[in-house]
Amino acid sequence: MTSKSKKSYLQLTKKWQRVTALSDTIAMLSWDRQAIMPSGSGSARAEQIAILSVLKHEEITGSFTAELIEKADTVELNNIEQANLSEIRRIYRHASALSPRLVEEHSRACAACEEKWQLARKENNFKVVEASLNQVVNLTQQIATIKAETFQSNAYDSLLDEYEPGGSSTKIDVIFASLEPALQKLLPEVIEYQSHINFSTYSNPVSIQKQKNLGEIIMKSLGFDFSKGRLDTSVHPFSGGTPDDVRITTRYNENDWTGSLMGVIHETGHALYEQGLPIPWRGQPVGSARGMVMHESQSLLMEMQVCRSREFFEFLAPVIAKEFIVQGDQWRAEELSKNSKRIIPNFIRVDADELTYPLHIILRYKLEQALMCGDLLVPDLPGAWNDAFESSFGTRPPDDLQGCLQDIHWYDGAFGYFPTYTLGALAAAQLFSTAIKDHTDMLTQISKGNFSTLLDWLRKNVHSIGSALSTEEILIKATGSSLSTTSFLLHLNNRYLGQA
Amino acid sequence: MTSKSKKSYLQLTKKWQRVTALSDTIAMLSWDRQAIMPSGSGSARAEQIAILSVLKHEEITGSFTAELIEKADTVELNNIEQANLSEIRRIYRHASALSPRLVEEHSRACAACEEKWQLARKENNFKVVEASLNQVVNLTQQIATIKAETFQSNAYDSLLDEYEPGGSSTKIDVIFASLEPALQKLLPEVIEYQSHINFSTYSNPVSIQKQKNLGEIIMKSLGFDFSKGRLDTSVHPFSGGTPDDVRITTRYNENDWTGSLMGVIHETGHALYEQGLPIPWRGQPVGSARGMVMHESQSLLMEMQVCRSREFFEFLAPVIAKEFIVQGDQWRAEELSKNSKRIIPNFIRVDADELTYPLHIILRYKLEQALMCGDLLVPDLPGAWNDAFESSFGTRPPDDLQGCLQDIHWYDGAFGYFPTYTLGALAAAQLFSTAIKDHTDMLTQISKGNFSTLLDWLRKNVHSIGSALSTEEILIKATGSSLSTTSFLLHLNNRYLGQA
Repeated sequence: MTSKSKKSYLQLTKKWQRVTALSDTIAMLSWDRQAIMPSGSGSARAEQIAILSVLKHEEITGSFTAELIEKADTVELNNIEQANLSEIRRIYRHASALSPRLVEEHSRACAACEEKWQLARKENNFKVVEASLNQVVNLTQQIATIKAETFQSNAYDSLLDEYEPGGSSTKIDVIFASLEPALQKLLPEVIEYQSHINFSTYSNPVSIQKQKNLGEIIMKSLGFDFSKGRLDTSVHPFSGGTPDDVRITTRYNENDWTGSLMGVIHETGHALYEQGLPIPWRGQPVGSARGMVMHESQSLLMEMQVCRSREFFEFLAPVIAKEFIVQGDQWRAEELSKNSKRIIPNFIRVDADELTYPLHIILRYKLEQALMCGDLLVPDLPGAWNDAFESSFGTRPPDDLQGCLQDIHWYDGAFGYFPTYTLGALAAAQLFSTAIKDHTDMLTQISKGNFSTLLDWLRKNVHSIGSALSTEEILIKATGSSLSTTSFLLHLNNRYLGQA
Repeated sequence: MTSKSKKSYLQLTKKWQRVTALSDTIAMLSWDRQAIMPSGSGSARAEQIAILSVLKHEEITGSFTAELIEKADTVELNNIEQANLSEIRRIYRHASALSPRLVEEHSRACAACEEKWQLARKENNFKVVEASLNQVVNLTQQIATIKAETFQSNAYDSLLDEYEPGGSSTKIDVIFASLEPALQKLLPEVIEYQSHINFSTYSNPVSIQKQKNLGEIIMKSLGFDFSKGRLDTSVHPFSGGTPDDVRITTRYNENDWTGSLMGVIHETGHALYEQGLPIPWRGQPVGSARGMVMHESQSLLMEMQVCRSREFFEFLAPVIAKEFIVQGDQWRAEELSKNSKRIIPNFIRVDADELTYPLHIILRYKLEQALMCGDLLVPDLPGAWNDAFESSFGTRPPDDLQGCLQDIHWYDGAFGYFPTYTLGALAAAQLFSTAIKDHTDMLTQISKGNFSTLLDWLRKNVHSIGSALSTEEILIKATGSSLSTTSFLLHLNNRYLGQA
C-alpha cells in the first residue's frame, strides 16, 4: 500500500460526508413535515426534498465514484474500512443500477399512487387505486429485474437488500415455514387459556400532559439522551432525525394511555440504537444502523421483551400511581402486567399483539412475492388477501379497508420491507434472552428502574457495531446462534401460557 | 431570438431551483437550530449547514454558470426575465469573485471570532476577542478589495451590496448627514416635552399563554397566514423559514407583555413580505425579497408606523381587556398609546426607541467604514466607540458590554449590514405616509382592526414586486420620491411632540 493509493479511499469517505449531510437534511425536513410543518407548506417541502434527493443521487453516482471505489479496492484497509468500502459499493450499485428516467418515473408513480390510496381508503374501494398500484408494481418489477442482474441475486432479494442488506428470501422462507404453524398451534391454546382470565380495561381518561410526563420519565429511565433528541406528537408515531438529533413522536388518546406509552417505548428503542451508533464513524455507511431487522429488533426488544415483562410493571406501577394520581387494584403491577397480555386477533396489523403480528406479516410477505413474480395480478389482490387472511385467522375481512387497503407500504413502492418486522421480533427475543443470561440480575434491576446494564449490553453487542458486521454476524457474535424462531416461541409460550 | 438560444436562460432558471432548494433547506435547518434543536446537536448541525453551503456555492459557481449567463445575455427576454438574469449575475459574481480558500478561511475566522465574542462578553473584556476580530477585519478587507475590483465599486459598497443590492455609501452619507443633526436637535426637545408627562408602566405579570394568544390574534388580524407559517419561541426573536413556510419567533417575559407583542408585530411585518412574494417566480432570485432595506421597512412599518399609532391602540385596547382579563385606566387606548411613546436614551441598540435608534446606527456605520478603510485599527475600537457615543448621546458607556461588545454583527463578519436598519425605518415612514394618503380611511379601518386595505396596498406596491425592481425604483413607483428623511422626521415630530 502506498499513501497515494489510500487517497482514493479517503476521497470516498469525504464524498460520503456530503452524501450523509444530504441524507440527514432530508431526514430533518421529513421529520419537520410530519411533526410540525404548517398544512399549506406541503408542495414547497416536497419540491425541496425532491431536489435534495436528486443532488444526493448525483453525489453518489458522480463520475468519479466508480473509479474511486475501484482504486480503493486495491488498497490495504483495516476491517472497519473494508466494511465501509463494501457498504459504499452496495449503495453505489443500488443508485447507479437504474437510469435517472426510471428512478424519476417510479418516484412520480409512487407519489400519485399514495394519493389515490388515500382516496381509495376514504371511499373504501380498491378499484380507485387499482390502476395506480398496477403501474407501481410494473415499475418495481422493472427495477427488481435490473437490480437482480446487477447484484446477481433474485428479484425479490434485490428489493429486500435496500431495507435489509444481505437479506435472503430463501432464509426467510425457512424461518417462516417453522414460525407459521407454530403460531397457528399456539394461538387457539392461548385464546382458550385467556378465556378463564378476567382482564380489566383502563377507560378512565388520563390527560395528555400526564401521559407526556410519564413518557418522558420512561424515556429518561431507558437511557434516552434529551440533549440529543426530542419527543413530539404526530398522527403516525415514528422515529426520525439523525444519530446526533433523534426525533421520536407518539400520539395521545385520553382514553388509552397504554397506546401512547407503548408507542413512546417502541420509538425509544429505535432512538437508543441511533444514539448508540459509533461516533468516530459518523457520516460513513459503516457508522449507520445495520438495517431494518436490527432496527426493529431494538424497538421490539424495548417494547415487547423489556417493557411488557412483569419486572418492568413492578417499576412502572408506583411511577404511574404518582404521575396519574391513581390508586386501586387495577393499577397494581400484577394487574398492569396481566392486562398487557390480552390476545385478540384483529384485522389490522398495527393494532395486533405480538402473537398474531407475525401472521399478518407472513401473509403480506407471500402476497408481495406473488405480486413481484407475476403469480398474482393487481386486480386479484383484494380476493387473494381475504382468502389468505381467512385461511390464517379463520375470519374474513369485511371490506378492503380492513384488508388490502390498510398499509401504505406497497402503494408507496415499498416491496420487501414487511418481513423485517417479524425478523426483528425474532432477533429481539434472541438478544434479550441472551442478555438476561449474561446478567442474571438484569430483570431484578429492571424491576427497580435500573436499565443501565441492559443499555450497556445493547451498546456493546449491537449499537456500537454500526454496519461493521452483517445482521447475522452481529447475532452470532452476541447470542452464539444465527437468527431462529427458538427464543421467540419460547418467549410466547412463557408469557402467554402462564409460565412467566 | 431563436428557441435554441432561450434554452440557456431556461437552464439557468432550472439551476436556480436547485440553488433555492439548498438556500431554503439551510434556512429551515437554521430556524430549527435557533428554535427547537436539542442543546447537544449543535456540532452535527453546523457540519450539515457547512456542507450544504459548499454544495450551494458549487452549484452557483459550477463550470456552466458563466457560460449560460453569457449566452442568456444575448437572448430576447421580457422585463422580469431580464431582472432575474441580472440578479443571477450579481449572485454569481459575489460567489465566484472569491477563491474557495478565502471563503473557507473567512468562514472559519468568523466562527472562531463569534465564540471569542461570547467569551469576551462573559468576561466583559474586549481584549479577549481583539486578535480574532483583527483577523476577521483583515479577511473582510481582502474580500472587499477583490469584490470592489470585480464590481468596479468601492470596497464598502461591495460589502453593502450583499445585504442591499445596489446600495451606495455616497447616498447613505447624504441621508445620514441630514438625519443626524435633525435627530440631535429633536431628542432634547422630546425629552423636555416628555418630562411633563406621567407615564404608567405595566408591571403586573401576564402569563406567557395569554401573551401568546394575544400575539396570534394580532398576527391573524394583520394578515399572517398560519397555514403557511408558525409562531415559536427563541432567545433572540427572528423571522426565518421560506416564503411558503415562514417561521417567526418571539420571547416572553411575564413582567413585560409589550416586548413580546412588539416583537411579534415586527417579525410579522417581515413575514407578510415573504408570504406576499410573487408565487409564479418562486425559486428564482427575481421572486425573492428585494434586500434588507425593504425587508426592514416592512417590519418597521408594522411595528413603528401602524402598531404604535393611536388608531391601532383603539383596536388593541378591547382585545387586551378580553385576553388579559384586565380593566382600569391604564388599559385604555389613550394610555396604551401614550405609554408606548416614552423616549429613554439607552446604551443598547436593541433596546432603543425609534428616535434614538438611528443615532446608534450612524455611529456603527461610521466606525465600520473606518475599520474597513484602515483609518481605525481594531485595538482602538473600544475607545473610538465610547468617544463617538459620548459625542452623540452625551453619556459614555461604562464598559465594553454596553459599548462595542453589544452587537454580534462585526464579530460574525457582517460589515455593511447596519445602515439597512435605518434606511428601512425611513422607507417605512415614506411608504406608510403614502398609503394613508392613497386611502384616507385607512387609519379608521385600522382602529377597527381591519388591516386588509393596508395589506393590499403593501402587496401591490412592495411584496408582489419581489426583486423585479430596485429598492429605489420600488420607492419611487409607490411614493413618487426616492428615499429621504422627510416622512420619517415628520412622523417623529408628529408622534413625539404631541401633534398626533
